[in-house]
Amino acid sequence: MRRAIALAARALGSTSPNPVVGCVILDADGRTVGEGYHQRAGGPHAEIHALADAGERARGGTAVVTLEPCNHTGRTGPCAQALIDAGVSRVVYAVADPSPSSPTSSEQGMPHSGAPSGGAATLAAAGVEAEGGLLADEAAAGNRAWLTAVQTGRPFVRWKYAAGLDGRSAAADGTSRWITSAESRADVHRLRAEADAVVAGAGTARADDPHLAVRGRDGVTQPLRVIVDSNATAVKPDARVLDDAAPTLIAVATDADASHLTGRAEVLRLPRAAGGGLSVPDLLAALYERGVRSVLLEGGPTLAGAFLAAGAVDEVTGYLAPVLLGAGPAALGDAGISTISEALRLDVTTVERIGPDLRITAVPATAATKEN
Amino acid sequence: MRRAIALAARALGSTSPNPVVGCVILDADGRTVGEGYHQRAGGPHAEIHALADAGERARGGTAVVTLEPCNHTGRTGPCAQALIDAGVSRVVYAVADPSPSSPTSSEQGMPHSGAPSGGAATLAAAGVEAEGGLLADEAAAGNRAWLTAVQTGRPFVRWKYAAGLDGRSAAADGTSRWITSAESRADVHRLRAEADAVVAGAGTARADDPHLAVRGRDGVTQPLRVIVDSNATAVKPDARVLDDAAPTLIAVATDADASHLTGRAEVLRLPRAAGGGLSVPDLLAALYERGVRSVLLEGGPTLAGAFLAAGAVDEVTGYLAPVLLGAGPAALGDAGISTISEALRLDVTTVERIGPDLRITAVPATAATKEN
Ligand SMILES: NC(=O)c1ccc[n+]([C@@H]2O[C@H](COP(=O)([O-])OP(=O)(O)OC[C@H]3O[C@@H](n4cnc5c(N)ncnc54)[C@H](OP(=O)(O)O)[C@@H]3O)[C@@H](O)[C@H]2O)c1
Ligand SMILES: NC(=O)c1ccc[n+]([C@@H]2O[C@H](COP(=O)([O-])OP(=O)(O)OC[C@H]3O[C@@H](n4cnc5c(N)ncnc54)[C@H](OP(=O)(O)O)[C@@H]3O)[C@@H](O)[C@H]2O)c1
Repeated sequence: MRRAIALAARALGSTSPNPVVGCVILDADGRTVGEGYHQRAGGPHAEIHALADAGERARGGTAVVTLEPCNHTGRTGPCAQALIDAGVSRVVYAVADPSPSSPTSSEQGMPHSGAPSGGAATLAAAGVEAEGGLLADEAAAGNRAWLTAVQTGRPFVRWKYAAGLDGRSAAADGTSRWITSAESRADVHRLRAEADAVVAGAGTARADDPHLAVRGRDGVTQPLRVIVDSNATAVKPDARVLDDAAPTLIAVATDADASHLTGRAEVLRLPRAAGGGLSVPDLLAALYERGVRSVLLEGGPTLAGAFLAAGAVDEVTGYLAPVLLGAGPAALGDAGISTISEALRLDVTTVERIGPDLRITAVPATAATKEN
Repeated sequence: MRRAIALAARALGSTSPNPVVGCVILDADGRTVGEGYHQRAGGPHAEIHALADAGERARGGTAVVTLEPCNHTGRTGPCAQALIDAGVSRVVYAVADPSPSSPTSSEQGMPHSGAPSGGAATLAAAGVEAEGGLLADEAAAGNRAWLTAVQTGRPFVRWKYAAGLDGRSAAADGTSRWITSAESRADVHRLRAEADAVVAGAGTARADDPHLAVRGRDGVTQPLRVIVDSNATAVKPDARVLDDAAPTLIAVATDADASHLTGRAEVLRLPRAAGGGLSVPDLLAALYERGVRSVLLEGGPTLAGAFLAAGAVDEVTGYLAPVLLGAGPAALGDAGISTISEALRLDVTTVERIGPDLRITAVPATAATKEN
């Protein structure tokens, strides 16, 4: 199973709206005879790749798969049936199918929805031993963004920020190149590669003219670049985000004049939010509808505050450089918190050194951990 | 030597203006026959304690000591001579005597200054084998504050702050109880116990009426509590810092009316600094003169900024709680840095989890590490 999880991880960032799935086929003597993973939406599922790799040797063997095999006839056929047809006698999977039973419009050969139940029942009915739960936590972690998205109905959102130890993201005069190290900046490209969309606000577009595409990594599926630019005034016709390195979507208000963007990017029209800007839930719903299951929110502080206020941040990744500034803009702007009891409490999940910097990952505290 | 270093550490925070020193006596067969450490200024040195513990068994044996034995006749007599008199045939020490050769007015039986050289030469002249350098780095780390102070001529300063991941030390309305956990707050008491003085600014005195003494730890030497209150208006006659839990010093401007403090605390008069407040170098010089070798600077942000701007911070200890606030005062105020190239670069030395929080320790980057 650990091998299957590793295989699945290879495609992180390339399979949406599908999850990542890995599969290993063992023959009747327990030897590995086939391996496969789901590489991209619309392509064959992990089980199909692995069965093709194994050929006749799958007969009487065991399929080890990170997610419960699918049951529906989508673009690539149901995997449960393929496993039965191949004569596999046992299927061991990690995570049960979490999908709601009715298909959504954004499905693209999605293996894990559209049927009243996952494939385990179908397998069992055909006399194939089917057993779930093996290394379930580990496999679920590999699919965390997708699982969260399927459960919440909006993309998983990871907010990334960079700051000094005192929380400043730039000096008093606005300069910030470079607070964090080359190693941290390279790591951000990894996060971009894992995400389906990278989101930044109009303020960042104005100040930094960011590119937001993945650089320095081979064979990645580029994320959708998204700028939230209510008035369609921040993204200029020559903005770097409009080049052809990756697809781009500019979210603007229904009443904005976005004619200068025609032919240069996809324009998404959204209602204005009461407090200014565009509605964060509407933005996320539109991205989900478009197949986006994971978002890397790259700021700036104002937009990050709005996401946090909307309860729309599932993970925080902070790159803290060992630098003190004492003045300058903070990494996070107003998040609607006025007193300490309203503070957004997190649990630190990992702390790592990235070159001279620290990368701190945290998730919103659950009710249980908040008690402490 | 490791045992001697551990013995030395027992007295951290209690020996100033002296260093911590530990000593182990081995007999001629290499068996431990005596142990001792310098417990407080004016008391016997580590070697004297250990020799007393060993008695006649020291003859022909080895003294293992964390710092080069002293050479001068102070309140407790020179240790080099005591070792010779006891018939020790070999002395192994870790760190050489770093003291300038002339005595300073703040000496109190200080073992390592006041003579043209340390005790190694005296020992050698008497035919005792004397050898330095064993575990020198480890022993020096245990005496870091004292060694830094002796070399710079001002107390070692550790700035401690507490903040959320976004660098805010309080919410928008000023509330901050409790950003960090009970575990972190207990750890701060450890830092206080290790320091000779705990320093806070007038703003903190006004806002928090802090106590600044060590609580919850047995047998500690309480640090000197210091409030920098230029106008002598922040510390009220009923301030908690004026209780008898620990000695207290209020630094005020030469022209301030501090009559309400008479009999309640020591009042230190200092010149006003050009930019407002009192001169940080003058404050530190006065504390050094008074025997203070290590300072725990507990803020607030304004005073911390002034210390950083004066180049008077040797170590930064940040307690980062996994909390986001998005608004509210920052942990660090103006430190005279206006653009990114002036940023104060640090090197992270340790990162530890303290309950749910992170404790990050960092030191100003050296020229070598800044290059990267
Ligand atoms: N350290 C870091 O990690 C990091 C990352 C990114 C950026 N930055 C820095 O942050 C600075 C820019 O930040 P910023 O705060 O000015 O701008 P920002 O957060 O990038 O963008 C804020 C703007 O986004 C638009 N917006 C649309 N919908 C919104 C909503 N629901 N809530 C909030 N905003 C919404 C608004 O402009 P319209 O009304 O015009 O649409 C708003 O003014 C730059 O200096 C950049 O360098 C730092
Ligand atoms: N999170 C933390 O770790 C932490 C720690 C401590 C405090 N705090 C918070 O910080 C807030 C208070 O901070 P603050 O910045 O207002 O006050 P502060 O830094 O405690 O004190 C600043 C004051 O100290 C006096 N001062 C004397 N000499 C100075 C010099 N050379 N440079 C600067 N100041 C000098 C000045 O007042 P005079 O001119 O009147 O003397 C100055 O206004 C409180 O809310 C407190 O809760 C947080």
